Amino acid sequence: MSGWVKIAGLGPGADDLVTPEVQVALADATDVVGYIPYVARVAERPGLTLHPSDNRVEIDRSRHALEMAAEGRRVVVVSSGDPGVFAMAAAVFEAVEAGPVDWRNLQIEVLPGITAMLAAAARAGAPLGHDFCAINLSDNLKPWALIEKRLRLAAEADFAMAFYNPRSKSRPEGFVRTLEILNEACGDSRPVIFARAVSTPQEEIRVVPLPDCTPEMADMRTMVLVGSSTTRIIERDGAPIVYTPRSAP
Amino acid sequence: MSGWVKIAGLGPGADDLVTPEVQVALADATDVVGYIPYVARVAERPGLTLHPSDNRVEIDRSRHALEMAAEGRRVVVVSSGDPGVFAMAAAVFEAVEAGPVDWRNLQIEVLPGITAMLAAAARAGAPLGHDFCAINLSDNLKPWALIEKRLRLAAEADFAMAFYNPRSKSRPEGFVRTLEILNEACGDSRPVIFARAVSTPQEEIRVVPLPDCTPEMADMRTMVLVGSSTTRIIERDGAPIVYTPRSAP
Repeated sequence: MSGWVKIAGLGPGADDLVTPEVQVALADATDVVGYIPYVARVAERPGLTLHPSDNRVEIDRSRHALEMAAEGRRVVVVSSGDPGVFAMAAAVFEAVEAGPVDWRNLQIEVLPGITAMLAAAARAGAPLGHDFCAINLSDNLKPWALIEKRLRLAAEADFAMAFYNPRSKSRPEGFVRTLEILNEACGDSRPVIFARAVSTPQEEIRVVPLPDCTPEMADMRTMVLVGSSTTRIIERDGAPIVYTPRSAP
Repeated sequence: MSGWVKIAGLGPGADDLVTPEVQVALADATDVVGYIPYVARVAERPGLTLHPSDNRVEIDRSRHALEMAAEGRRVVVVSSGDPGVFAMAAAVFEAVEAGPVDWRNLQIEVLPGITAMLAAAARAGAPLGHDFCAINLSDNLKPWALIEKRLRLAAEADFAMAFYNPRSKSRPEGFVRTLEILNEACGDSRPVIFARAVSTPQEEIRVVPLPDCTPEMADMRTMVLVGSSTTRIIERDGAPIVYTPRSAP
């Protein structure tokens, strides 16, 4: 029996945002590997071995998955959101490229999922309804200068922006700087959405004008979405609707 | 009984990429509105009225959905992919903003879906595994000069890029120009992915070095993904894997 690796996106948290394709892969798997809180979302059953591992060991985890598949096991690598967006798919392919040539001909599939920015956008309205960009604000794997350059160019291009990993305890200064750059480059009161733990019981959505944003509004469970210059707010009873019209002047 | 509007993403085409959340909404609906080919993906059943409409009548369709919800009906507005990405959610909110004040307090929800760029990326590997942008190449609703500006800035920011609506019969020249700009601005042989009709029986994926791309490789059913300067190809038997590493120099 030939093994495989499926790199699957579990979506942002709610079970009803997991695609049937991913559910079938999990039902067929012999092994599930991934970061502890994501593996915890997979139900245990006879015949399935769960391999939770810590954060920042993405390449070790990927190698482990590939080794097991080479031995004939059916391995699901779980990510939250979509595995192709700041998640496990790139890590697995990095391991494939650096690994034994045989790994290249393993059956490896990526199963897409609902990525956090789209779940967050849906809750707020349609802030990404026009051209936009997605930037990982963590400088663990890239120089901060590159992030800063991208922020400035994204503002100049008038993209709406989605920020993954906006702020962690170990690097609180990056998001401080991000807000400074955005205020300088945008110079307006466009809406910023702080969407925390979307689709989970801890979900919290705040809409804040850019000049009023403060760093502690974000943590590692928060997606930050920044409107473009054309993004609009519809006030109503309860939470406002934030959307970016389809047309631009 | 109070009505609602749910703006739902059907994903790129395959049934197993439709979330359970969207399936439940369709099962609860009294009415489904949307562009003809998307409404055709919804199974008929007693108690459900399908309202297919033609392309380019997004605001009329939105008003119709909102009017029905105001009358107490349960209306699903269907989009392919994700409704918040170059799809119906922004159109519905445009109609809400321009419409009677009462519409603002209707129950309106956006149900996210698997957007085309992420389904296409999954098929190719992980080309959007690092910072990226999404640009609608249609100039129906924005000036071509703005598209051109965004392309140049996106290349300068070294984003991977995802292009929606790259080319139609009525505006074939835009994608010709896009390729010229990219060749000029990127000046390398980064991989470009042409992903047509992803997850349908007509699916076709091609990976082509940027200088070898020609306009007719894309049509309106094609997602075009352009790598960043760091995007890599893993050659193997069959289709190559295209991925963008998580780290950048």
